[in-house]
Amino acid sequence: MYQSENLTDWVLLGEFNPQVQDFGFMWECPDFFELDGSPCFLFSPQGIEPTGDFYQNIYQTGYFLGTKFNYETLRLEHNGFHELDLGFDFYAAQTTIAPDGRRILIAWMGLPEIKYPSDQDGWAHCLTIPRELSVLEGQLIQRPITELTALRGAHVKHQDSQYGRVHLGNLLGTSYEVKIKLRVEEKTKFGLCLFEDPITNKGLYLEVDLNKGKFKVERKDCGIPFATEYGTSRQMKYNKKEISLYIFVDTTSAEIFVNDGLAVFTTRVFPEKQQSGIGLFVEKGLMEYELEGWKLNKMDIKSTEK
Amino acid sequence: MYQSENLTDWVLLGEFNPQVQDFGFMWECPDFFELDGSPCFLFSPQGIEPTGDFYQNIYQTGYFLGTKFNYETLRLEHNGFHELDLGFDFYAAQTTIAPDGRRILIAWMGLPEIKYPSDQDGWAHCLTIPRELSVLEGQLIQRPITELTALRGAHVKHQDSQYGRVHLGNLLGTSYEVKIKLRVEEKTKFGLCLFEDPITNKGLYLEVDLNKGKFKVERKDCGIPFATEYGTSRQMKYNKKEISLYIFVDTTSAEIFVNDGLAVFTTRVFPEKQQSGIGLFVEKGLMEYELEGWKLNKMDIKSTEK
Repeated sequence: MYQSENLTDWVLLGEFNPQVQDFGFMWECPDFFELDGSPCFLFSPQGIEPTGDFYQNIYQTGYFLGTKFNYETLRLEHNGFHELDLGFDFYAAQTTIAPDGRRILIAWMGLPEIKYPSDQDGWAHCLTIPRELSVLEGQLIQRPITELTALRGAHVKHQDSQYGRVHLGNLLGTSYEVKIKLRVEEKTKFGLCLFEDPITNKGLYLEVDLNKGKFKVERKDCGIPFATEYGTSRQMKYNKKEISLYIFVDTTSAEIFVNDGLAVFTTRVFPEKQQSGIGLFVEKGLMEYELEGWKLNKMDIKSTEK
Repeated sequence: MYQSENLTDWVLLGEFNPQVQDFGFMWECPDFFELDGSPCFLFSPQGIEPTGDFYQNIYQTGYFLGTKFNYETLRLEHNGFHELDLGFDFYAAQTTIAPDGRRILIAWMGLPEIKYPSDQDGWAHCLTIPRELSVLEGQLIQRPITELTALRGAHVKHQDSQYGRVHLGNLLGTSYEVKIKLRVEEKTKFGLCLFEDPITNKGLYLEVDLNKGKFKVERKDCGIPFATEYGTSRQMKYNKKEISLYIFVDTTSAEIFVNDGLAVFTTRVFPEKQQSGIGLFVEKGLMEYELEGWKLNKMDIKSTEK
């Protein structure tokens, strides 16, 4: 660790000691900050093996959230490594501080060494939306920054209940944010299909299976396949009969915030043209739903240079 | 006119004199009341010839809104006959007074001597929703009574702008209320298609044509034709670049309140099964729209008998 008071002259303090061994062969993009009183070390380790539902991507991004950091010994007491995002395409996250003190994170919505379908068009990857970080029960919580509401255009709101499947159609175009709450009565399978083809029902599935106790994002039937050697689904433990999803979609991306930022699944997809709808489904019993969404206007980029 | 203080003993006062001659061969369903200080005589005359956009149905229902009624001479000063509803299926309206003093109207949503497609199933006709009456600039205004909000179920809200045509799909099922505001920039044709088949674009058209200066309800392409000898469209003068429509749909009926009850078009339709959507269209330029709707729950009918 180095220290500087003017960002020009640096003093070596010693080696940072988060007390872990054999945790990958390289750590990229370190970022160290204090948040809500907790020291936090954010980094992107390479060489971590898949374990249960975790570490499924080629490389990971996550953090040690410390209970104490000793600036003399550079030793960090913490509760272990947490993956920051459970989706397919998330790496090299970095944070900055807004003038009002918020800690804001932006990550690379992609991974090194993965071939993306857009490569043939001469481009790959993009960045996530800016996310505000906070600490809740020993975990980093990510939420879209409120400034994004400035992009809101056309507005849609639905509240209903259903059995089976409902095709809501192309409600919001290809760039939108949508908040969805689902609630079921039975111990069943239920969820949402983004980029839905209403004829074949193919799309990006966000599905709770209460019999398996999982929430899963499945992209195997959503357009052009890629990175399939790392699997086509990402999942986590989930046992509730209700779920709240806050999703930003932008043509080939979906950033899925589950239960107010408790988990995030960031995912690229390259859907077919007819995959433009939103569908809701429940296998057994009634599902109540609330949906509110906005089309996203283009961002107005102003140069401050003269 | 007769007078009674106990509804058993009646005194003949003489002949009501609204000062009109040769106005049909029979007047049915007379109703005489005061509203907002104006005497109003509501009745259903038979034998009125079609005139311009008016009196297109086999028989009419309308009113004389009086400036003065002389209870001695029974003479009513008024500003002429006004048709109460400009739709295809409206007759024999009658009013009652609610405990809080509101004057509430219910009409027969049908006409004598017309064959309805449901006749073969052993039934015809139904009643309109209850409508509260008020007086505005020498005219009776009809608005759905607020008690109807108790039937509201699933909720939908859309706000967007569009060029051309948009299919909103089967947003609200077959029994619903919907409020729609449309606003265009060009002197063009724009409107709404209820009971829309999204493949053929056939349905019940509510259309403003600013080149013709008309608002028109056209039912020629909406399922089983009937009463076509009385024409397939009803219209009125209209020259504004915006319109507000408040519509109650119940399977085979549409009650269309234009600009907050200034005009109402009450219409039966017998759509095909695939005619279940809502469409919006504009011929030239951009159209902004706001739509808010609710599915209507079934009414809970309770008997007060023991």
